[in-house]
Amino acid sequence: MATETQRSTGRRRNPATRATILATAFAVVAELGYAGLTIEKVAARAGVGKQTIYRWWPNKGALVLDAVLERTAGAGSDGAPAELPDTGDLEADLSAVLVATVEEFADPDFDRALRGLTAAVIEDAELALAYRERLDGPMRELKKRRLRRAQEAGQLDPDVDLDLAVDLVFAPIAQRWTERSGDLTPDGARTVVRHALRGLAAP
Amino acid sequence: MATETQRSTGRRRNPATRATILATAFAVVAELGYAGLTIEKVAARAGVGKQTIYRWWPNKGALVLDAVLERTAGAGSDGAPAELPDTGDLEADLSAVLVATVEEFADPDFDRALRGLTAAVIEDAELALAYRERLDGPMRELKKRRLRRAQEAGQLDPDVDLDLAVDLVFAPIAQRWTERSGDLTPDGARTVVRHALRGLAAP
Repeated sequence: MATETQRSTGRRRNPATRATILATAFAVVAELGYAGLTIEKVAARAGVGKQTIYRWWPNKGALVLDAVLERTAGAGSDGAPAELPDTGDLEADLSAVLVATVEEFADPDFDRALRGLTAAVIEDAELALAYRERLDGPMRELKKRRLRRAQEAGQLDPDVDLDLAVDLVFAPIAQRWTERSGDLTPDGARTVVRHALRGLAAP
Repeated sequence: MATETQRSTGRRRNPATRATILATAFAVVAELGYAGLTIEKVAARAGVGKQTIYRWWPNKGALVLDAVLERTAGAGSDGAPAELPDTGDLEADLSAVLVATVEEFADPDFDRALRGLTAAVIEDAELALAYRERLDGPMRELKKRRLRRAQEAGQLDPDVDLDLAVDLVFAPIAQRWTERSGDLTPDGARTVVRHALRGLAAP
């Protein structure tokens, strides 16, 4: 069976080749956008055969998701995302996270690669599921964990749904980036956090 | 000059042909997504020549933007968007608007067409500008006008930036739709409005 072959080959995949392919895919989507990326182009630039890529990634959506994941996981050597800061000052901690996000968006390569992935996720429900399970979901869990501690410390409304709390804090800046509907500045990020937390505070 | 020819032909364009092309473009992007839409397909299905479409819309982004705009402007016969409700109860008024948005997203054709346009806007800065000027901008002005009246009535923090206020109220649901990161329900929409307004209230 083809699937069996893929699986057994998958187990033997070479980490250096994998890293080269992902870095190349990231560069290609940053340069040409999602519509402009083809498996052929990535293969040619990475110096591997198309079949090597198809053996590990079923389509370009899966490849671009892994490429962005590899870049954002970045810091931790095990690929696991770091815990959110917890100094006890919720507003300062969330502001630090959101300001870091604004700074990431200011990197043109990261901006374009993430735009490519986001555009694909919007139209492709299957890719959206993978995106949620592997990128957005784990980040969301970290955010909820930080908010849950604040809730337990009486800093947040005990009845508020934590998914809604995450959206209220993080969606305004994300949406402004998606639609280019306004400036993205560290001060703007801090103001969003201040008002969102006021809206989520214990009544 | 080609541009002059386009302009003078543009002045004489037939409203019925225009409506047919836009309705067809809406149906095609709803069925095939933005990547699957080509000017050729729209022309064939609408029973017009490709050149008729290119004479009025320079590219498929402009065509899809107009197709969505035509559908959303819908209600008003002059194409101008209606004023937001103003019963004096800000929370009820904004909830009504956001619940209507959630209901619009539940229409599969509208959902897919708007996903196509949004995906294109994310990657295409020029289309994003047209989107902002013609679709998001006018809607945003209506929202700000409603919020400004509430601010003048002492219902909102006098120092809050109204663009930020719009984002705090409307981005959480929009982002949840974009990334399919959670359920979209009328109750969820109302809860977002309640917390967002608490965050924007006069301190």
